Amino acid sequence: MPRSKSRLSIIPLGGVGEIGKNMTLYWYGQDMIVVDAGLKFPDEDMLGIDIVIPDITFLVENREKIRGIFLTHGHEDHIGGLPYVLREINVPVYGTRLTLGLVENKLREAGVHDVKLITMDGKSRVQLGQFAVSPFYVNHSIPDTVGFAIETPEGIVIHTGDYKFDQTPIDGRHADIHKLAQWGARGVLALVGDSTNAERPGYTPSEMTVGIKIDEIISQAPGRVILSTFASNIHRLQLMIRAAERHGRKVAIVGRSMVNNVQTSLQLGYLEAQPDTLVDPDEVNKLPPEKVVILSTGSQGEPMSALTRMARAAHRKIEIVPGDTVVLASSPIPGNEKFVARTIDQLFRAGAHVIYRGVHASGHGSQEELKWMLQLVRPKYFLPVHGEFRMQRIHADLAMQLGIQPDHIFITEIGDVVEFEDGRARLGGKVPAGSVMIDGLGVGDVGNIVLRDRKLLSQDGILVVVVTLSKTTGHILSGPDIISRGFVYVRESEALLDEANRLVESTLSKLVSDNVSEWSSLKTAVRDTLGRYLYEQTRRRPMILPIIMEA
Amino acid sequence: MPRSKSRLSIIPLGGVGEIGKNMTLYWYGQDMIVVDAGLKFPDEDMLGIDIVIPDITFLVENREKIRGIFLTHGHEDHIGGLPYVLREINVPVYGTRLTLGLVENKLREAGVHDVKLITMDGKSRVQLGQFAVSPFYVNHSIPDTVGFAIETPEGIVIHTGDYKFDQTPIDGRHADIHKLAQWGARGVLALVGDSTNAERPGYTPSEMTVGIKIDEIISQAPGRVILSTFASNIHRLQLMIRAAERHGRKVAIVGRSMVNNVQTSLQLGYLEAQPDTLVDPDEVNKLPPEKVVILSTGSQGEPMSALTRMARAAHRKIEIVPGDTVVLASSPIPGNEKFVARTIDQLFRAGAHVIYRGVHASGHGSQEELKWMLQLVRPKYFLPVHGEFRMQRIHADLAMQLGIQPDHIFITEIGDVVEFEDGRARLGGKVPAGSVMIDGLGVGDVGNIVLRDRKLLSQDGILVVVVTLSKTTGHILSGPDIISRGFVYVRESEALLDEANRLVESTLSKLVSDNVSEWSSLKTAVRDTLGRYLYEQTRRRPMILPIIMEA
Repeated sequence: MPRSKSRLSIIPLGGVGEIGKNMTLYWYGQDMIVVDAGLKFPDEDMLGIDIVIPDITFLVENREKIRGIFLTHGHEDHIGGLPYVLREINVPVYGTRLTLGLVENKLREAGVHDVKLITMDGKSRVQLGQFAVSPFYVNHSIPDTVGFAIETPEGIVIHTGDYKFDQTPIDGRHADIHKLAQWGARGVLALVGDSTNAERPGYTPSEMTVGIKIDEIISQAPGRVILSTFASNIHRLQLMIRAAERHGRKVAIVGRSMVNNVQTSLQLGYLEAQPDTLVDPDEVNKLPPEKVVILSTGSQGEPMSALTRMARAAHRKIEIVPGDTVVLASSPIPGNEKFVARTIDQLFRAGAHVIYRGVHASGHGSQEELKWMLQLVRPKYFLPVHGEFRMQRIHADLAMQLGIQPDHIFITEIGDVVEFEDGRARLGGKVPAGSVMIDGLGVGDVGNIVLRDRKLLSQDGILVVVVTLSKTTGHILSGPDIISRGFVYVRESEALLDEANRLVESTLSKLVSDNVSEWSSLKTAVRDTLGRYLYEQTRRRPMILPIIMEA
Repeated sequence: MPRSKSRLSIIPLGGVGEIGKNMTLYWYGQDMIVVDAGLKFPDEDMLGIDIVIPDITFLVENREKIRGIFLTHGHEDHIGGLPYVLREINVPVYGTRLTLGLVENKLREAGVHDVKLITMDGKSRVQLGQFAVSPFYVNHSIPDTVGFAIETPEGIVIHTGDYKFDQTPIDGRHADIHKLAQWGARGVLALVGDSTNAERPGYTPSEMTVGIKIDEIISQAPGRVILSTFASNIHRLQLMIRAAERHGRKVAIVGRSMVNNVQTSLQLGYLEAQPDTLVDPDEVNKLPPEKVVILSTGSQGEPMSALTRMARAAHRKIEIVPGDTVVLASSPIPGNEKFVARTIDQLFRAGAHVIYRGVHASGHGSQEELKWMLQLVRPKYFLPVHGEFRMQRIHADLAMQLGIQPDHIFITEIGDVVEFEDGRARLGGKVPAGSVMIDGLGVGDVGNIVLRDRKLLSQDGILVVVVTLSKTTGHILSGPDIISRGFVYVRESEALLDEANRLVESTLSKLVSDNVSEWSSLKTAVRDTLGRYLYEQTRRRPMILPIIMEA
C-alpha cells in the first residue's frame, strides 16, 4: 500500500487503457479529491451487463480523507458512476451549473438523496485541505464543460477533462486559453490530458460548421426534417432550433432523454427558443410537412430509440414517410456501426431521404489542438489519459515531439500511482482498481464465473439431465429425463435426444452395478459421456447440468 | 409459384439487402444457372452460429433444371456456401483457374467429392441450355476475378460480380472494358451490378498505391516488418514479397490460411518469389531483424489469428518486440472495429511501431467506377445487388443520374423474381429464400426458438428448480432444489436463493393443498412467482426451468 505523507499522488481509477468510466484521484497527505465518476458501456463479452463503473475499493478504504468530487462536465462517462459512488462515500460534489442540473436529475432517478451539490463557475477557486481547485472553461460537445487547475504543495496540475478548442463556439464562450497561458507561465508541474482524438491529425472542425450544414439541409428540404443527435449535445440542438426558426418551422422533441435534456437546458438558460417554436409531437401531424422539424434521439441506431421506432413504424406519434429528410448528425461510436447501418436502411426503406455523413464535429481536440494545450501549459510532466492504450501512446509521442522528455511522460494503467516529491515524479505502486459490472440491481455480484457461464450458454445452450436414484439400492427409479434449451430444436432432434438418454442410462447403470455411488463421480461420468457424444454428433458443446435426486 | 416458360427470370437468392452470401439464379424455361454460392458471417444476434448460407430450397426443388454453378472469384462470400449446395445438388462448377484451385481445397476439407470443376478463362463461352456464359475479367482484391455476360433468348445480361477498375493493376491485367463496351454497343438487356462501395464518392485508389506505401515502410523500417492483410489478397502479398526482395529481406509466412493461399497461388503461378526469398518462420529468429519481413494473417484482429497471438506473446515461433514495425494493411470490416483496436493496442504495448491506417485500397469500385460500368454497358434495366439496402438505393440513384428510368431499376430483396418477357421487365412473385444458419454440423436446425433461448440465457442465465412429488399424496417428497448458472455468484447470494427456495415450497404446498395437480399449472406458478421475486430483488430475468418429478 503506497503512502502519501508529503508527496502528491495522481491515481487514475478509470479512463486509461479504455474509453469511458473516467475517474482520477488526487492525494496529498491527509487529503484526497476525486475528478469525475463516470461509467462505461459493457464490452461485447460482458453478456447481460448493463453498465460498468470503476472499482472504488481504494476510495472506500480512504473515505475519511476524501474532501470532494469535482466534475468536468455532464456526460455519462464522467458522471454516470456518481450514484454508486455516493452510496458508498457521501462527500460534496462540485461542478458547473448545467453539470449539476443533470446530476440532480440522475441522483433523483437513482434515489440518492442528501448530497451536497456545490456550483462552480469560471471564477471559482475552491480550497479543500491541501488542494485549491480552479475550473477553466473548455469547448466540448456539452455546454459548461471545464477542466481544473489543481494547486498542490508540489505544484500546479492541469487536468483538462474532455476538450477541444473551438474558435467559433455556439454559445460564444471560448476556452480559457488566457488562464491556461497564465498557469503555463507560472510553471505547471503536470498536465493530465484527454487523448480521445490523439489518432486524428489536424484540427477538429468547429461546431459552427455543423450549424451551416444543418441550415442548408433545412433550407432545401421539401418536407419534414428529422434531426437526430446525442441528447446531451445542447449546442447542436440550439443550432437545430435556430435553423428551424430561421426557416419558419416548428420544432417537436421526441425521445425521453432528449425531452429531459431540453427541459433542463431551457430552465437553466443553456438553450433558447422563441415562445412559439416548440410544439408537442401530437401537433406535428396537423402542420404542413415543410413547417416541421423534429429533434430525435437514436443517432446511434439504438434499437429502442425514437428514431429507430419511427423508421419501423413502431412509434406512437410519428412515422417516417416518403418526402421526409432524416439527418443523423453523429458518427457511430465504435461497436455501434451495425445498429446505425440498420437504422439507415430502415429509414431508406421507409422512403426517407437520409443524410448520415458529414453532419458532425467531434467534441475532442485533434493532434494540433493537443499540441496547443501542451504548448500553452508547458508542463514538466505529462500524463496522457482518457483513451485506449494506442491513443495514450500517440499522445505521448506528440508530447515528445514538443520536447517533453520520455521519462517525464507516464502512460498509466488504472490503479497506477504517479508520485511527485520535491519536484520529481516516479511511478509508485498500485492501488486496488478495476471494473465493477452492474447487472440490474447487482453491483459487482456478477464475476468471471457467471460471465463464463453466460458465454457458454449463449453459444450452445444447456442440457439438464435429471435422474432419481433409489436411496436403498442406488438403482435408477425414474429418468433420466433430458431437457434442453438453446441447443437444438427438440422436435427435430428426437433421435439425438433419445440416444443421449440411452447413453446416460447405460452409463449410470454400469457405474451403479460397479458400486460407484458418489454423486460427483456419477455427475462427471454423465457430463463426459454425454458431452463427447453430443460433440461427435453436432460439433456443439452445450453446458450439461446433471441433477441426481434420491427417493 | 412463378413459371418461366418463355421468359427470363433473375432471382437473387443472397447478397441483396445484405453484405455476403452472394447467389443469383438465372432461369429460362427448362434451364437454370446459378452465379456464386457464398456464405456470410453471423449477425451479432445469431448467438453460437458459425456461418450463414442462402436458403436453397428453390434450387433443390428445381434440381433437374440446374445446368451449372458459375463462380466470379474465390472469396468466401462467393464460394463459401458451395460445399453445402453441392451436397444437395451435384452440378458442374465453372470458374477461373485460381478460383477453382481455392474451391478444390475447400471441397477437400469439407469432404465433398466427385464434383465436376470446369476451368474458364477470358476467352471461354459456355453454352448450357438456353444460356451462353462468357466471363470477362475485372479488377478485385483477389486475382482471376471475372464477371459474366449471360446471353439469353431475351437478351444479354451483364453480371458484374465484385469489381473495381484499376488503371495500374499489379498483375498487368486490366478489366475487359473493351468487351464491356462491345456488349454495350450490341445492346444489353440488364446489368446486375455490385453496390458494395456505392456510398463512396470518387474513385477507389489503385492497388499500386498500396505497393508504394509498403515499399516506403519497408525501406524505412529499422528492424523487422510484420505485414498483415487478408490471406486471399494475393496481389497485395505479391507487392509485399517484391518490396522485401527489393530491400534484400527474406519473407516468412505465418497463419494457416495465408500459408495455404500462398502455396496454391505459387503452384498455379499467381504469385512469384525468387527461389531464396521465402523462409520458414523457424528461420526468422536466426536472421538480423533488418533482413526480415513477415506476412501474417490477423488484419481483422481475429482473437486466434497469428498476429494477435504474436502480439500477446502466445505465438509458438514469433513474438513482437520493440523495434518491430507492424502494418495492418486493411480496414476493419464493420463489426470488427473493437477486435482490431484491441490488437493494435496489444501491438503498441509490446513495443512495436504500428501503422494501421492508409495502407489499404478497397477491391470494390466507388461511385465514379459504378458510373463507368453503367455507361459502358448502357443497360435497358438495372438491378443493383451485392449490398445492404442503402447501398442498392444509392446505386439506383446513380443510375437515375445517368438517365436510366426509375421503373427500369429493381431494388430487390432475396427471393424476388424479376421477369423479362418480350423485352419488358417486371417484378414477378417470390420464391422461397432466406438464411440458413450453420452451427457445428447442424445445417438449419437452429431456428428462432433456439436463438431466443440462447439470447435469454446469455443475458441473465438460468435457474433450474427441481422438486419431487409423491405419486400418491401429491405432496413434496424432496426439494425444491435450485441450481443456477449465469445468474448470480451462488456463494454470495445464499440468502436470495434460500428465500427463492422457501417461496417455491410455499407456492407448491398451497397449490397441492388446493388439489391443483396438473404439472403445467404447477410449473407456471413456480415460474411466475419465482420470476417476480427475482426481478424485484435483482432486476434480472433469468430463464426459469421447473422440473417436477414423481416418486
